[in-house]
Amino acid sequence: MKASSFLVSTLKEAPADAEVASHRLMMRAGMIKKLGAGIYNYMPMGLRVIRKVEAIVREEMNRAGAVEVAMPVVQPAEYWQETGRFEKMGPELLRIRDRHGRDFVVQPTSEEVVTDIARQEFRSYKQLPKNLYQIQTKFRDERRPRFGLMRGREFIMKDAYSFDRSPEAAQASYQNMAAAYRRIFDRFGLRYRAVAADSGAIGGDLSEEFQVIAATGEDAIVYCPQSDYAANIEKAEALAPTHARPAPAQAMEKVATPGKSTCADVAALLNLDIKRTVKSIVLATDVLDDQGEIKGSEVWLLLLRGDHDMNEVKVGKLPGLGGGFRFASLAEIDAHFGTKPGYLGPVGLKLPLKIVADREVALMADWIAGANEADFHVTGINWGRDLPEPDFVADIRNVVDGDASPDGKGALAIERGIEVGHVFYLGTKYSKAMSATFLDEDGKPRHFEMGCYGIGVTRLPAAAIEQNHDERGIVWPDAIAPFTAVICPIGMDRSEAVRQAAEQLYAELQAAGIDVLLDDRGERPGAMFADWELIGVPHRVVLSDRGLKEGTVEYQHRRDTEASKIALADAAAHVKGRIVL
Amino acid sequence: MKASSFLVSTLKEAPADAEVASHRLMMRAGMIKKLGAGIYNYMPMGLRVIRKVEAIVREEMNRAGAVEVAMPVVQPAEYWQETGRFEKMGPELLRIRDRHGRDFVVQPTSEEVVTDIARQEFRSYKQLPKNLYQIQTKFRDERRPRFGLMRGREFIMKDAYSFDRSPEAAQASYQNMAAAYRRIFDRFGLRYRAVAADSGAIGGDLSEEFQVIAATGEDAIVYCPQSDYAANIEKAEALAPTHARPAPAQAMEKVATPGKSTCADVAALLNLDIKRTVKSIVLATDVLDDQGEIKGSEVWLLLLRGDHDMNEVKVGKLPGLGGGFRFASLAEIDAHFGTKPGYLGPVGLKLPLKIVADREVALMADWIAGANEADFHVTGINWGRDLPEPDFVADIRNVVDGDASPDGKGALAIERGIEVGHVFYLGTKYSKAMSATFLDEDGKPRHFEMGCYGIGVTRLPAAAIEQNHDERGIVWPDAIAPFTAVICPIGMDRSEAVRQAAEQLYAELQAAGIDVLLDDRGERPGAMFADWELIGVPHRVVLSDRGLKEGTVEYQHRRDTEASKIALADAAAHVKGRIVL
Repeated sequence: MKASSFLVSTLKEAPADAEVASHRLMMRAGMIKKLGAGIYNYMPMGLRVIRKVEAIVREEMNRAGAVEVAMPVVQPAEYWQETGRFEKMGPELLRIRDRHGRDFVVQPTSEEVVTDIARQEFRSYKQLPKNLYQIQTKFRDERRPRFGLMRGREFIMKDAYSFDRSPEAAQASYQNMAAAYRRIFDRFGLRYRAVAADSGAIGGDLSEEFQVIAATGEDAIVYCPQSDYAANIEKAEALAPTHARPAPAQAMEKVATPGKSTCADVAALLNLDIKRTVKSIVLATDVLDDQGEIKGSEVWLLLLRGDHDMNEVKVGKLPGLGGGFRFASLAEIDAHFGTKPGYLGPVGLKLPLKIVADREVALMADWIAGANEADFHVTGINWGRDLPEPDFVADIRNVVDGDASPDGKGALAIERGIEVGHVFYLGTKYSKAMSATFLDEDGKPRHFEMGCYGIGVTRLPAAAIEQNHDERGIVWPDAIAPFTAVICPIGMDRSEAVRQAAEQLYAELQAAGIDVLLDDRGERPGAMFADWELIGVPHRVVLSDRGLKEGTVEYQHRRDTEASKIALADAAAHVKGRIVL
Repeated sequence: MKASSFLVSTLKEAPADAEVASHRLMMRAGMIKKLGAGIYNYMPMGLRVIRKVEAIVREEMNRAGAVEVAMPVVQPAEYWQETGRFEKMGPELLRIRDRHGRDFVVQPTSEEVVTDIARQEFRSYKQLPKNLYQIQTKFRDERRPRFGLMRGREFIMKDAYSFDRSPEAAQASYQNMAAAYRRIFDRFGLRYRAVAADSGAIGGDLSEEFQVIAATGEDAIVYCPQSDYAANIEKAEALAPTHARPAPAQAMEKVATPGKSTCADVAALLNLDIKRTVKSIVLATDVLDDQGEIKGSEVWLLLLRGDHDMNEVKVGKLPGLGGGFRFASLAEIDAHFGTKPGYLGPVGLKLPLKIVADREVALMADWIAGANEADFHVTGINWGRDLPEPDFVADIRNVVDGDASPDGKGALAIERGIEVGHVFYLGTKYSKAMSATFLDEDGKPRHFEMGCYGIGVTRLPAAAIEQNHDERGIVWPDAIAPFTAVICPIGMDRSEAVRQAAEQLYAELQAAGIDVLLDDRGERPGAMFADWELIGVPHRVVLSDRGLKEGTVEYQHRRDTEASKIALADAAAHVKGRIVL
């Protein structure tokens, strides 16, 4: 490609609403152009990256035995009504009425439609396993779209769906996909982790997120440097402490803590380690009558160490809280504690409630909690002596750096990641809802065991940039760069020698199968270099009259701190040698 | 590809709503699957065809210097409001409200959005010409979607838009695209015609349709076998007869024609050539007052020879009728003619009206028309003697087979076609509506001269099938077949010799770069052959124990009437030699 017949369009400044590096750099590099909130044109430079991502995904999906289909962007609501998602999903599901008043959705995923295909196409166990995938436009009407392609409304996703005879076969399909995902992410050339994720009601470990490591990532991911354990923060288990609970050493004492409503403030005031404090979180579940109307509520007190954070996914798995919970109202809190939040504690309750102690708290002695009286806390609290043993002891907190790894092989570390892929064992959730069955070997109909597997095709370039950029711009991995190499001739319009050498090197690199761009725009060197550093092309060759007189050109990798002189005759081979695909 | 890891899914019967061959065959061959009215899943077999069409289009668009972008499927209404199309377009424009109550459309085309890109990106004449294209999902909410992919609601279109400095430059861009389209359609391997089309208000000849020839086509296309003249029926000019009007030879006479209200019936009753009859078509235009309210109407009488059909596009170009016209109401007809349709004529009117004679009618003598009295006609009518010369003489009819070619080089013929491409010079219609300008060499802002260029990517396979099928199924051209060749081993599961030979031939054909499928499903020969004939794979090699014993296989092209024996060793070379790409 020559720049003159392409569209190179860079900006000095990013728009004010671009909050993160990838959004700023994609806008400045002319890769995307905003059309509306969360809706972008994929401009030529950006589309090349997207197409390279798609090609890698497609190749590896085909290699893994998946078959490509394309399901409609606009889907009749009737399929979504079969599973109840048409009603259950919030306003992020974009609903449409057509000219005849019939309901449709713009697909955010395609579980319903693919299950409809399966129930028509896969009649016999002999046709299984099958995996259907598409690379297709999706829409999710985010309330607050932002961060460019990171959280857009219209986006491209690769979504695959596997259909199997049995849970065991489905797990093999799942593992096949998880392996394909590792090949795909390896080929992208990004640092990533496959982390165990929560698989909701199905249980087991058959859900993994593929997280691109980036300091700016929205997700906390947990890993063990001494082993291959990795999980997202929702999933990572905080093991029970191995020590026994110490015997009480202090008497219980009410202390004044005026205006100190957080554990950190109380610890500071009392000059104590925050790890001796316990925070009270009050949840409530609604109690329904026979007609499904709310007739009352049940209140729960969760106790966590002062420096720990509640993990909502883990809490949601407690018996009695799986059906949904909310934070208790002020009225509910007052009824049970007789005071307002900030000074709550488990000792001296007005009304009984269910107490859940985090595993850590359950083994603490002489701890500190609110006194259920404004501006007072209690120190020296001990289980059994000052209050009954908790109703439940469970892991209800997020792990923290240094916690023991659940696999017993070291201590956990935490880093940030951006989720760009997800593999998930679905079980029979959709096949049962849609009566999607096949005839098994025994002649009986059975529901398909399903899995679903997504990759955010347009999110991936944004994640790649969050991981790979510097003050000058983007630094693309070779595999997904808009161009792998760029030739920058200085004074091409004035010097026939430069023009000829540039054209010849361009032809040589093309012949070597390298995706090369020749910058024939006639820009001055500074502007030209700034453009390509901003755009992030990994390999750059600069030709000038001065160099050519001694038969050399300058090669610089986008990560190199300076250029190196290379014989013109070796230039193509040198570039080829530096490419990592 | 091996059939066992693909999705081969054929049907014996097409669904009842499949009215045309392409729809029936695409459904039976498992290429598409209906999800809703005019909305289809592209199944693996069909998607391969679509992807091949896309690849050819993309290659030739790139070769022609166009640059690929992707504009959103869901577009904010504000752009469509700038051109007024949001309000003006009918319900075929699918409108959406998002969660915040903002208006959007699902793109049927992208003139507005691409013009918005241009007014931001192309600031200077130095950046022109530019041509941006996309291959993207479109939606058109057809009132009556039908014929499968031929007239679906969701479809894939390649749409390109050129931006130029001047009408002359825009015409060069137009010609460049028209040439690229010829290369594209040549490569598809289909019989097609590029026909001149009406370019509406812009005038000139800068609008061509690319029509795939098929007896079942919806469009009538006109061509001259003796020259390269070709146009659609709306556009093709009916030349004025070269003869002078004969002198009157008959007296005017009222004849009884009870119940004979058509020219054909009258001609039959009177035993005369229908070419001596004249039909009366009564149109009306509304007359508006200063406030734009309808205050009355003007009535027009169009006279065509009895065997000719009115051409609405040509009529719309008459002075006074360009603003829109309708057929006159019965009341309007009665007021002017004093009778009902079927017996209308230009002689003896109750109220004067404007008379438009087709060029042919204007030169007729002794002709026959309605008597403006039920069950009576008048014979021997002559211009000048029995009624004044017409107010207008114009070409207002469709040409018919045998008419003189407008280029003077022979006689016209008519065939049917399916429109799958259109190139169109737009002028400044959109750039003016959206104030899209660039700075020209003289430092002054000027509106872009635009062109637009479409190819119906998902319609093309349907058109290809309408042109290429027989009683057994589809006959794909090599370039867009789902697979170019298929290997059908008979008894592969029983015979190691067959299995080995099949696998080896499969490897050889793959190594030769041929898109080959090995049918390893273990189907019986009859079912296997029927499947591939239905699906329409152009090249088939059958391997059997009997043949292999003498070292031969059977090759059959989908168009061959019987198979031919080929040495196994020559099979790959033979297939390769028969492929036309």
